[in-house]
Amino acid sequence: MKAKVIVMPKQSILDPQGVAVRDAVQHHGLPAVKSVRVGKMIEMELDGAFSEEQLHEVCRDLLSNPVIEDYQLVVE
Amino acid sequence: MKAKVIVMPKQSILDPQGVAVRDAVQHHGLPAVKSVRVGKMIEMELDGAFSEEQLHEVCRDLLSNPVIEDYQLVVE
Repeated sequence: MKAKVIVMPKQSILDPQGVAVRDAVQHHGLPAVKSVRVGKMIEMELDGAFSEEQLHEVCRDLLSNPVIEDYQLVVE
Repeated sequence: MKAKVIVMPKQSILDPQGVAVRDAVQHHGLPAVKSVRVGKMIEMELDGAFSEEQLHEVCRDLLSNPVIEDYQLVVE
């Protein structure tokens, strides 16, 4: 089984890495890119007993910083 | 318009960050997690003229390191 966790900076939080990437992309000749946000994609391979609640706990406690980031969990 | 770019370490490349996360998750009480890979998720807001080829160029030149990473581009 596979699980994907996407961790992105909250909308209300300034994302300096995203601003730097946006400026670089615009400078590279693509001014159509108006804003960029950079986050993490974490892919997990699972085998054995687990509950979705345990995965959410891991997302909250280890994989994201709930003060400045939101996460999205997709179990496939 | 939105574009998402997912940049992951190539399958054949050792991902030390993923190994560290896997060990932490197992230690946290979830031994069902057998392997973890950590990559980047880049969300772009687009407005104006652009071609998908230009976006692929940006992915190759700025957003990923083709030697050790693969990228996936999704335009929505």
